[in-house]
Amino acid sequence: MKVSGVVKDFKPYNVLEGNYRIWLDKNENPFDVPAEIKEEIFEELKNLPFNRYPHITSDPLRERIAEFLGFEKENVIVGNGSDELISLILKLFEGENIVISSPTFGMYDFFAKLEGIDLVDVPLDERFKLQNIEDYAENAKTIFICSPNNPTGNTQEREKIISVLETGVPVVLDEAYIEFAKSSNVDLVNDYDNLIVLRTFSKAFGLAGIRVGYAVASKEIIDYLHRIKTPFALNSLSMKIAELMLDHYDLVKQNINYIIKERERIYKEFKDHAYPSEANFLLMCLNAYEFLLDRGIVVRKLGGRLDGHIRVTVGRKEENDELIKVLKEFLEKDY
Amino acid sequence: MKVSGVVKDFKPYNVLEGNYRIWLDKNENPFDVPAEIKEEIFEELKNLPFNRYPHITSDPLRERIAEFLGFEKENVIVGNGSDELISLILKLFEGENIVISSPTFGMYDFFAKLEGIDLVDVPLDERFKLQNIEDYAENAKTIFICSPNNPTGNTQEREKIISVLETGVPVVLDEAYIEFAKSSNVDLVNDYDNLIVLRTFSKAFGLAGIRVGYAVASKEIIDYLHRIKTPFALNSLSMKIAELMLDHYDLVKQNINYIIKERERIYKEFKDHAYPSEANFLLMCLNAYEFLLDRGIVVRKLGGRLDGHIRVTVGRKEENDELIKVLKEFLEKDY
Repeated sequence: MKVSGVVKDFKPYNVLEGNYRIWLDKNENPFDVPAEIKEEIFEELKNLPFNRYPHITSDPLRERIAEFLGFEKENVIVGNGSDELISLILKLFEGENIVISSPTFGMYDFFAKLEGIDLVDVPLDERFKLQNIEDYAENAKTIFICSPNNPTGNTQEREKIISVLETGVPVVLDEAYIEFAKSSNVDLVNDYDNLIVLRTFSKAFGLAGIRVGYAVASKEIIDYLHRIKTPFALNSLSMKIAELMLDHYDLVKQNINYIIKERERIYKEFKDHAYPSEANFLLMCLNAYEFLLDRGIVVRKLGGRLDGHIRVTVGRKEENDELIKVLKEFLEKDY
Repeated sequence: MKVSGVVKDFKPYNVLEGNYRIWLDKNENPFDVPAEIKEEIFEELKNLPFNRYPHITSDPLRERIAEFLGFEKENVIVGNGSDELISLILKLFEGENIVISSPTFGMYDFFAKLEGIDLVDVPLDERFKLQNIEDYAENAKTIFICSPNNPTGNTQEREKIISVLETGVPVVLDEAYIEFAKSSNVDLVNDYDNLIVLRTFSKAFGLAGIRVGYAVASKEIIDYLHRIKTPFALNSLSMKIAELMLDHYDLVKQNINYIIKERERIYKEFKDHAYPSEANFLLMCLNAYEFLLDRGIVVRKLGGRLDGHIRVTVGRKEENDELIKVLKEFLEKDY
């Protein structure tokens, strides 16, 4: 029994567990689905046969998402989290490597390593904007652009995204946090057959627990993705819940506005240490991870180029009040 | 944009859709979770935060399964269906190919093709028993044994399984249908570090809609699987529901007994055309797929070596009555 070298060397994705009072580490939405909508969900689930396999390609949800965005069902694929879709996309195209721009979402790297695909990193510039990634298109299977970018919070210019699309190479535009930003580029799918836009129900929709992501792309790409997709991968309950939350987009929108307002409030308090953000989190140049943790507040500690930085999810008002208070203590102590 | 050859040639897994009155094609359990247990589930889900990510490795469910089977948590991994686990296992070991014995479950082949791994087929003999697969162990990443086997319904001898394990090569023993069989071989995990037993909540537990599978193996193998597993892959609701159904194993057991009794009743009616089964389905040498479909009954049409055969899931008594009636009409017509 010989375990493969890749697996032996693999670093698993880890998260902190334990009893802490405030969790601002995973870019979760601070609001659970309200009790009355949960009741509505349970009414639907009463009639949902748990014993039957879900729709093989989640078509009822694909249709609902397509309607919501103004696309056709054939432009949409639904995944068990957008992670499932990232791993499928890596298998889709010919090429020698994938191109990313660090610092960015860790799962591109995770799946590339797992698939044994070379990763070319064209780091973001000092303002976290994309550099000359077009120059790396020729041998690329796929270029990944995360906008708003995790963990920096900023978006990339539409003109730059178009410039990368013009190379003709497949481009993944990860819009996991787009609902907190000024504008989306999902409409570019109408103009570019090589664009795949990734979205999720985990952030703005407040449904990280049900694991539903989706991609919008040309019908050709969606068809290829469906060929290699594990059948029945998304369970029936998550599918139904995502559908129902789309019916309650007014509430989702309310929460988005609340989070944006709170984000700006925190940003103003720490202008000298925080970066402007169009997501539901803030990147801060504050080496305060342990200080916060000691006081029961969990945030994300960053490393590498962002050593000494933290990523802080925007929480509920009272959580943010606590965060602000403790960070001010940290600053007073430190300076 | 060049789509990879593997993807272009890929045959997606398809299922029939449409309005038919009786579905006996997917080896589903005919019983939905009863209303009173659904109520209990909804009570739990009221307090479950939909907005928070699930436990990263589904530990609460791992613990509950381990307790149920008499293993430790470290011997159990939970997947988004056992399909997720099959795809991970294929990445785990060094070797040149995987070994299967056809006719068997199609997903071993599906994932091997997707991963570009060679498949060596050592077909089952005329009684659907394993042949000399031990002889193919030397270069194998993994040997797959499905027992009870889908779609033939028979089990493999414990002595034969041990003989394959003795080669030292990693062996996947797929026990998806084991609750309908006379006995399991999961206890062999205590003796063989190279054994991975696959199980599911989709069949005996009647939870195909929630997509939960699991594997039992040595702590070493489970640790390696966790390193490469997509974090948070199993959603919180499915995890909670699987836990609760383990608390209601008395009901699960009742349904298993009902299905076994019905299976034997159908088998006796068509002894000359059906194979003995230890699963929740029967393989029949009857070319009756279209005849049944025309009368609103969907079963699985088989091909290749099993051309002219159908696989029939055991349903509720009234569904089986209909099946028996229509199959008798088919036989009267045909002979």
